[in-house]
Amino acid sequence: MTSVIVKEESSVSRDARRKMIESAVTLLAMRGLQGTAFSEVLERSGAPRGSIYHHFPKGKDELVDAAIELSGQRALAVLDEVEGASPSEITAYFLGLWREILVRSNLRAGCAVLAVSVATDSPGLLEHAAAIFRAWTSRLTGLYVAAGIEPERASSFATTLVAASEGAVVLSRAQRSLEPFEQVASLLLETTPGRRKLSPGRPRT
Amino acid sequence: MTSVIVKEESSVSRDARRKMIESAVTLLAMRGLQGTAFSEVLERSGAPRGSIYHHFPKGKDELVDAAIELSGQRALAVLDEVEGASPSEITAYFLGLWREILVRSNLRAGCAVLAVSVATDSPGLLEHAAAIFRAWTSRLTGLYVAAGIEPERASSFATTLVAASEGAVVLSRAQRSLEPFEQVASLLLETTPGRRKLSPGRPRT
Repeated sequence: MTSVIVKEESSVSRDARRKMIESAVTLLAMRGLQGTAFSEVLERSGAPRGSIYHHFPKGKDELVDAAIELSGQRALAVLDEVEGASPSEITAYFLGLWREILVRSNLRAGCAVLAVSVATDSPGLLEHAAAIFRAWTSRLTGLYVAAGIEPERASSFATTLVAASEGAVVLSRAQRSLEPFEQVASLLLETTPGRRKLSPGRPRT
Repeated sequence: MTSVIVKEESSVSRDARRKMIESAVTLLAMRGLQGTAFSEVLERSGAPRGSIYHHFPKGKDELVDAAIELSGQRALAVLDEVEGASPSEITAYFLGLWREILVRSNLRAGCAVLAVSVATDSPGLLEHAAAIFRAWTSRLTGLYVAAGIEPERASSFATTLVAASEGAVVLSRAQRSLEPFEQVASLLLETTPGRRKLSPGRPRT
């Protein structure tokens, strides 16, 4: 299912649609699935009432579906930045994306995809959320493999990086403190495969 | 805030209250905060309509508060089992608790506390969720320290264990597969501090 399909529409209309989707991403990340109301999406996006049914005739699930698709694709797109980077750089970059979400929102936003996955009763939305988690993990796996990590190792570390980042964001948001996130981030960086260990007392090669 | 206060009530009444709280834990873990409706809590617990307002006069937030308290305390209580165990045993035991939730629910249930934390607009409930995450982390830290791990290391590994388990449960539920959870679990076991490394080709001491 579900990619963001933009039909033949004026750029103004596309822009309005995009703003609604962006607003939904923000609301999902801050308030969860049921806390994301059409009325507030309209308010935040400045779109006229009625336009939401024009753009999302199937209702809220269709908007939420577009919102998690956008979140998912955005993370994949920025990962292009670390194409060819070292394993440590890949880990640090991915963690940096999450840190930015926490810091920018003053520790109030988390992951829109996670918020949907734990609260939806729609098999379609759940499957879409699963596909996004899989896409992130598989993209990261590919990056680690390209950086010389053995595939099985790359896959298990990539899954752990996604899982631990998601969980760390949950802890930091709830505790209104970056500390849990930073503890997890340090440990993930340290256990990144292929990382050169700096043994004190031995010269670096 | 918030511990489960049982006033002078008959044991039948206490039992009814407990059943409602248990039902709320199950619903929160499977459907999220807003998916947990009073009507369904009554249905699952077999309690008579009206009794929910007798036991939870402040409404749904009060029931949800009691439900996450029960989840939180239950995990703390079972961790007594690994008092005095080795670091690997502690990690394996904690992971085993989560695996059981996934397997028993046929990959449909996750963590009630996480579900509340990403969807509530109540500062009280969010603070309570945060306190539970902190309590789990600090109990695990204490266990690792008792097993000989240096305190700072113990704390950062305990936080990572809680975060990564939470995230892994989210991935496995969404993907309807134990695989992500098992990948994360293996890596966490392997990176547990104080674990004796089995270097192939070198005799074990």
